[in-house]
Amino acid sequence: MITHISPVGAMDLLSQLEVDRLKNTAKSDLYRLYRNCSLAVLNSGSHTDSSKELLEQYNTFDIRVMRRERGVKLELTNAPEHAFVDGKIIRGIQEHMFSVLRDIVHVNVQLEHASVFNLTNSNHITNLIFDILRNANTLLPGRDPDLVVCWGGHSINEIEYQYTREVGHEMGLRELCICTGCGPGAMEGPMKGAAIGHAKQRITQSRFLGLTEPSIIAAEPPNPIVNELVILPDIEKRLEAFVRMAHGIVIFPGGAGTAEELLYLLGILMHPENASQPMPVVLTGPEESANYFRVIDEFIRDVLGEEATKYYEIVIGDPVKAARLVKEAMPAVKEHRKATGDSYSYNWSLKIAPEFQLPFEPNHENMANLDLHMNQRPELLASALRQAFSGIVAGNVKEEGIREIERNGPFKINGDTVLMKKMDKLLRGFVEQQRMKLPGTAYVPCYEIVQDSNKR
Amino acid sequence: MITHISPVGAMDLLSQLEVDRLKNTAKSDLYRLYRNCSLAVLNSGSHTDSSKELLEQYNTFDIRVMRRERGVKLELTNAPEHAFVDGKIIRGIQEHMFSVLRDIVHVNVQLEHASVFNLTNSNHITNLIFDILRNANTLLPGRDPDLVVCWGGHSINEIEYQYTREVGHEMGLRELCICTGCGPGAMEGPMKGAAIGHAKQRITQSRFLGLTEPSIIAAEPPNPIVNELVILPDIEKRLEAFVRMAHGIVIFPGGAGTAEELLYLLGILMHPENASQPMPVVLTGPEESANYFRVIDEFIRDVLGEEATKYYEIVIGDPVKAARLVKEAMPAVKEHRKATGDSYSYNWSLKIAPEFQLPFEPNHENMANLDLHMNQRPELLASALRQAFSGIVAGNVKEEGIREIERNGPFKINGDTVLMKKMDKLLRGFVEQQRMKLPGTAYVPCYEIVQDSNKR
Amino acid sequence: MITHISPVGAMDLLSQLEVDRLKNTAKSDLYRLYRNCSLAVLNSGSHTDSSKELLEQYNTFDIRVMRRERGVKLELTNAPEHAFVDGKIIRGIQEHMFSVLRDIVHVNVQLEHASVFNLTNSNHITNLIFDILRNANTLLPGRDPDLVVCWGGHSINEIEYQYTREVGHEMGLRELCICTGCGPGAMEGPMKGAAIGHAKQRITQSRFLGLTEPSIIAAEPPNPIVNELVILPDIEKRLEAFVRMAHGIVIFPGGAGTAEELLYLLGILMHPENASQPMPVVLTGPEESANYFRVIDEFIRDVLGEEATKYYEIVIGDPVKAARLVKEAMPAVKEHRKATGDSYSYNWSLKIAPEFQLPFEPNHENMANLDLHMNQRPELLASALRQAFSGIVAGNVKEEGIREIERNGPFKINGDTVLMKKMDKLLRGFVEQQRMKLPGTAYVPCYEIVQDSNKR
Amino acid sequence: MITHISPVGAMDLLSQLEVDRLKNTAKSDLYRLYRNCSLAVLNSGSHTDSSKELLEQYNTFDIRVMRRERGVKLELTNAPEHAFVDGKIIRGIQEHMFSVLRDIVHVNVQLEHASVFNLTNSNHITNLIFDILRNANTLLPGRDPDLVVCWGGHSINEIEYQYTREVGHEMGLRELCICTGCGPGAMEGPMKGAAIGHAKQRITQSRFLGLTEPSIIAAEPPNPIVNELVILPDIEKRLEAFVRMAHGIVIFPGGAGTAEELLYLLGILMHPENASQPMPVVLTGPEESANYFRVIDEFIRDVLGEEATKYYEIVIGDPVKAARLVKEAMPAVKEHRKATGDSYSYNWSLKIAPEFQLPFEPNHENMANLDLHMNQRPELLASALRQAFSGIVAGNVKEEGIREIERNGPFKINGDTVLMKKMDKLLRGFVEQQRMKLPGTAYVPCYEIVQDSNKR
Repeated sequence: MITHISPVGAMDLLSQLEVDRLKNTAKSDLYRLYRNCSLAVLNSGSHTDSSKELLEQYNTFDIRVMRRERGVKLELTNAPEHAFVDGKIIRGIQEHMFSVLRDIVHVNVQLEHASVFNLTNSNHITNLIFDILRNANTLLPGRDPDLVVCWGGHSINEIEYQYTREVGHEMGLRELCICTGCGPGAMEGPMKGAAIGHAKQRITQSRFLGLTEPSIIAAEPPNPIVNELVILPDIEKRLEAFVRMAHGIVIFPGGAGTAEELLYLLGILMHPENASQPMPVVLTGPEESANYFRVIDEFIRDVLGEEATKYYEIVIGDPVKAARLVKEAMPAVKEHRKATGDSYSYNWSLKIAPEFQLPFEPNHENMANLDLHMNQRPELLASALRQAFSGIVAGNVKEEGIREIERNGPFKINGDTVLMKKMDKLLRGFVEQQRMKLPGTAYVPCYEIVQDSNKR
Repeated sequence: MITHISPVGAMDLLSQLEVDRLKNTAKSDLYRLYRNCSLAVLNSGSHTDSSKELLEQYNTFDIRVMRRERGVKLELTNAPEHAFVDGKIIRGIQEHMFSVLRDIVHVNVQLEHASVFNLTNSNHITNLIFDILRNANTLLPGRDPDLVVCWGGHSINEIEYQYTREVGHEMGLRELCICTGCGPGAMEGPMKGAAIGHAKQRITQSRFLGLTEPSIIAAEPPNPIVNELVILPDIEKRLEAFVRMAHGIVIFPGGAGTAEELLYLLGILMHPENASQPMPVVLTGPEESANYFRVIDEFIRDVLGEEATKYYEIVIGDPVKAARLVKEAMPAVKEHRKATGDSYSYNWSLKIAPEFQLPFEPNHENMANLDLHMNQRPELLASALRQAFSGIVAGNVKEEGIREIERNGPFKINGDTVLMKKMDKLLRGFVEQQRMKLPGTAYVPCYEIVQDSNKR
Repeated sequence: MITHISPVGAMDLLSQLEVDRLKNTAKSDLYRLYRNCSLAVLNSGSHTDSSKELLEQYNTFDIRVMRRERGVKLELTNAPEHAFVDGKIIRGIQEHMFSVLRDIVHVNVQLEHASVFNLTNSNHITNLIFDILRNANTLLPGRDPDLVVCWGGHSINEIEYQYTREVGHEMGLRELCICTGCGPGAMEGPMKGAAIGHAKQRITQSRFLGLTEPSIIAAEPPNPIVNELVILPDIEKRLEAFVRMAHGIVIFPGGAGTAEELLYLLGILMHPENASQPMPVVLTGPEESANYFRVIDEFIRDVLGEEATKYYEIVIGDPVKAARLVKEAMPAVKEHRKATGDSYSYNWSLKIAPEFQLPFEPNHENMANLDLHMNQRPELLASALRQAFSGIVAGNVKEEGIREIERNGPFKINGDTVLMKKMDKLLRGFVEQQRMKLPGTAYVPCYEIVQDSNKR
Repeated sequence: MITHISPVGAMDLLSQLEVDRLKNTAKSDLYRLYRNCSLAVLNSGSHTDSSKELLEQYNTFDIRVMRRERGVKLELTNAPEHAFVDGKIIRGIQEHMFSVLRDIVHVNVQLEHASVFNLTNSNHITNLIFDILRNANTLLPGRDPDLVVCWGGHSINEIEYQYTREVGHEMGLRELCICTGCGPGAMEGPMKGAAIGHAKQRITQSRFLGLTEPSIIAAEPPNPIVNELVILPDIEKRLEAFVRMAHGIVIFPGGAGTAEELLYLLGILMHPENASQPMPVVLTGPEESANYFRVIDEFIRDVLGEEATKYYEIVIGDPVKAARLVKEAMPAVKEHRKATGDSYSYNWSLKIAPEFQLPFEPNHENMANLDLHMNQRPELLASALRQAFSGIVAGNVKEEGIREIERNGPFKINGDTVLMKKMDKLLRGFVEQQRMKLPGTAYVPCYEIVQDSNKR
């Protein structure tokens, strides 16, 4: 079946050169990247979190970009049916299709040969992320701070899900907007809740921002409520985009991905140059999840020290309080930006050390070489732990990661005994609570904890 | 506590004469009407459906209209707290406050002394309703048919409630808009569902229209999602507004009010002059409620005849089908209006007989005098039954009705044996299924069925 | 030739009753009023200022209101061709057609039988004018003071016309909006100039407001730049609308109509209750017109006293200064409204004595009975003089007035010798400078000055 | 004097890297380019057409880009006063300031190191122009053809100027939009006229597009009515932008620049591959200018052949006809784009030969080497003549050109006797009619016609 779709919301003009680059040719990596991201977006609302499965299920799917008199058109062959209502594509998904096109063209065609950016230079990486977000019209200069990044698991239980909606509802009533990593669970609930809150407050400039990356988008496709979608090149740039755009951060229960995000965040906030940054961070969940946060809190205290726990507040079973904590911090955020002349929409002055910016490739060698021992500066340990969890996410849900594991067995993670024990315990908890993968299949770990007596 | 609120969305200018009329003076009925409707709107989301209770609970509430340099302002004293978030009124409620003001001023001040309308003349009643709706900017001439009136109980169970959301969601995805009588339950669910559907379809011109009347608004206050609110003078004009604005009608499970609405609708659609009117009517609920519709269907068939059942379709447990049935009828509705030159926004050509238009006052005498026997034309029987159910609704939830019952005991409803038995059965069903009143209190019937052997 | 036009900008829904009232029936005065106003609007840009001539030229013109599925439509027969470009009506004129419909329906149908307004009561007149302007969406509550009423002749020379454009341009650059009485000359120039000024300032909320009345609209049809048009019932209500809406007033050279306006204004501003009203009034023209203002200034000083001249400032040949004087007064106007709680959009607190409100019918008897002598309070003399000039305008350009003069010869104006001499001199000046009527025809005065020795 | 201005309409976010590049450093060519273009824009409405003069007059002018919390800000030192009204910058000019910034950053920073574009490749040049126009939001994909390019002299007499306004007015009434090269005279008149036409038609999406280049912007600064401004890198790219964006072209009287444009246009339209391109071209002026067009028409016929004259129509003294000719061609333009699948907003399929694309540097050597003889294909001759006139424009008004002439005396233009005679006659005509430079100074030719007997 062939369908044609027209642009909405973004990207309606391409040059001849740009269209040529996206053509489906046997050896084109770019075409494959574009096709897969588009397929992921069309798959919004499906119930698999395995990228590989999705790609195999729709192996006859094809996409073609065509220039037409009223702008660009996309021709889809054998697209997933649930993207359509009575034969017409859902407009939210239609917009996402063009967001994908926009970002692929910008990053992989327009910027590809640009020597403007040197991607081993920290400053240049930050400028590139700015450039991508600006090109996506995601940086709105006239707007007061109101963007709350919500992190949490894609696989959470019903009680937790309802709780994320309630927190979203309370934030929406307080005119806050939501940014998540796309996907179901804690990435969707706050948006749905905030949408109702915004409807009650008659907010027409609602922002439901999804930041994703090519390797995760298939496992966690954007909910159609997402009304701004940006595909960053990799997880490190995506994480940097989150923290530079965030005016506040709320963390719900989750698994390895959520742990990665929290460690990334703490590693940055603990950097001495960020001492004066006002950044509200709230860890919150329903009564039933109190234990989850107790465990995380302990893990942080044990491995990064008491100091690390002062960067966040834990709120149990109180959506109003969670929302208020973030809302009440907005004036301080605004004041700080004004005082430093920093942008409201992009936190230039947040210091992010290169080890948090340079891409970590999650293969067996890199996983084995992680420097996981307690005797180092907390930021560095946070960085290494972040990479470890990042590898586990890849092994769980990303296409490349899953293939790696199929070929070479589980990643071996080793480090000093104390640390490895704590990590093992945390991960086991995630497995038991079914936070690693969507329920329904038995979870087969993609990693092994190896206690390295040498590293002790 | 005193709060001031400024106009949004409607009514921002009043003349000196108009403000004078709304002043709080000892004997002003108009002030009392205005105050009580405003209080009801502020009470949105509360959990009582007894108007009397509400009014007693907030007996220190006061409202004052003030003309100020930037337009009108309202001064509220001791308003219900849940209308506010962190001390600021929820904007949806703020809009409703000014809708109340607009309609009270228009009907009770601007039109009061107008001899333009003769309210015993059927044609004039229809013109008056048009005038009220137009003044509320509710008739949008450039717009294609898309308005679905949803009827159903304010007191429904969780499964039914979720079902109304799903049907709303499917209608929202199909770009349909929702009109209900305000209030919780089946009047709220479809709007919430459609709001999410519209968000996915990026519809910015969403309409969530609430039609209410002064005597019911306190028991069924508008949900803040309602983004157009109109207060019609009485239940008969409200019902006429529903059917003249509707491009399709969906009926969910409900109690006496829903029965009133269905009988009203059938009485009109069965009128010979309406034979060519295309009007999709869908009765729908979850699997669990299949029995409810079977009983209703039987009642209709028995009392109004097989003929009456061809005006509606029953859909069980299939939200997509329910939504599609309505959506697919829209072109025929449009075509018919075009062919007859009738307005898309107000169905002038629908014939409504005077017995459906003239106000029925639900007191003991009128209830006792209802002509309830089987040997009459179905439209006339439908009209009499409609009035009977209307009286029961009044006795259940309306301030005046409750006081009547307190003073004089239950209404006596009599009619021929066969009919009375059927009616008794139907009403007992409503009571058993807790559809008469919100759960929590034991329901004390406000009526008695008296089988009148004379009327047989 | 028959054309159909659809609503833009206003009035798109009429009830059956309203349409019925506007039907063309042999004896319908209302139809005739509606038809003539519509014809006048279609005649925009023509070069006659005689209402009678216009009406006779298009005596086959017919208009019919039809209700259709997408709202009201107008059917025109034999409409003036210059209202169309390549067969399509100019959209500005199309809007004016519906403004006429709106105001005729509101005043003559909706309010006709309303006993709300008692039109011999000063307060009620003021409320009626408010009601008409509000119904026309002309009172914008959220807007800061920015509306400058410009008065001046419809028949001015090219140098004066260019000057009015320049003043308009300077006011437009200063984000001021323009209100005039419609028509060519000084009523058009400031709007054209301001339109360019607004384009330079990218102002999208430009207001070019025209206030007219049925008896003058044919002689001075609204320029299509007018983007808000209101038809007030008569000249007195129109003048009141001007001064209650004005945040500042600029008076260019003109004839009898301009004299009427100036005397009306001074009569009001000199009222003791208006002592604290901040109202910038600027009389301005090019160098070449300096003499004109000298003569007017002298006349005012002589008949109303030195005191009267402090209410205005004369600016010669300096458009920037004229514009600045008005602009710089806006904060005081705003402040005063705020301090008194008065509306920004309608100056409720301006005292207008009944003699300026009650309609003056310009027939021979009333003109002869005017109390024109020097020994009276200046406000009263201003009122009587205002009426005298009003009569002359009617005799010059209004249909009824022209017919009166045709039947009974010129109006006789008598009063005390001193005053009559001054008045005669002023009027002769207007005639010599061709300010009475558009150039091209020899002006035959519609009045005679009679020096009444009794009145001394 | 120092002023700060905030972004409107465009370009509100810059990255750190981009701001760094625009810094004022001793040797920065980029800063100088940016500063001079900004100064030119601020000089809108001034009365010099000598770039050099302007730059010398404001040699203390300085501009600095600053990143601030709400986006970019510009700091101006000693800016021309006439860009301000009562101390506030005119918003149209403010927008232009940011258009300059946007285009300089895009072309000179963002694209500078991009090897995407090979600027000796015809196809890449066309893609680069597309890229610049797209980045300026000037290509509007959803819009039907309505853009009329108007060419003509910056120095025309009052009668011609009024005529350009009238043609603009008639085009505006027909809902056409205007694109010119900025500057006064025939580049401003049509816009002013169309602005009034659009006001009458209530068009809110008016486009007044100015295409300019760094070397001419100072001599012909954009009128503030221009609401979209794009700075192309050089005259050849600017001309290509004109013809690829044009849906129709109107040519008013002008001098060397207008001749350059006409020859460029004919050289392209005569290309065999453009045979099927529908492109209405109208040469028009008032009666008084009939002779001017007769001379041009003869010159074209003599040097390019009878064939060349069929690409345009000459209309004398008839603004309605001129406007209609263009308007009536729009459906054919749309049809052709649709049939070929070409963009409505950018005419990709128009063939432009490389000799019309590659930059011609107007120095003495290049001017002397022009191949000006009759024995060549008309397109080639058109190209060479275009370059000759381009050089004369540079010598008249462009900074670099004026310096060249100051250093080395007039350009020597040589070619075969017949052609040189015709050219001499044409140019003398321009000089006599004061079309070369703004009146007021005696024109000293920047060229000498040398009849080269060899080239005969």
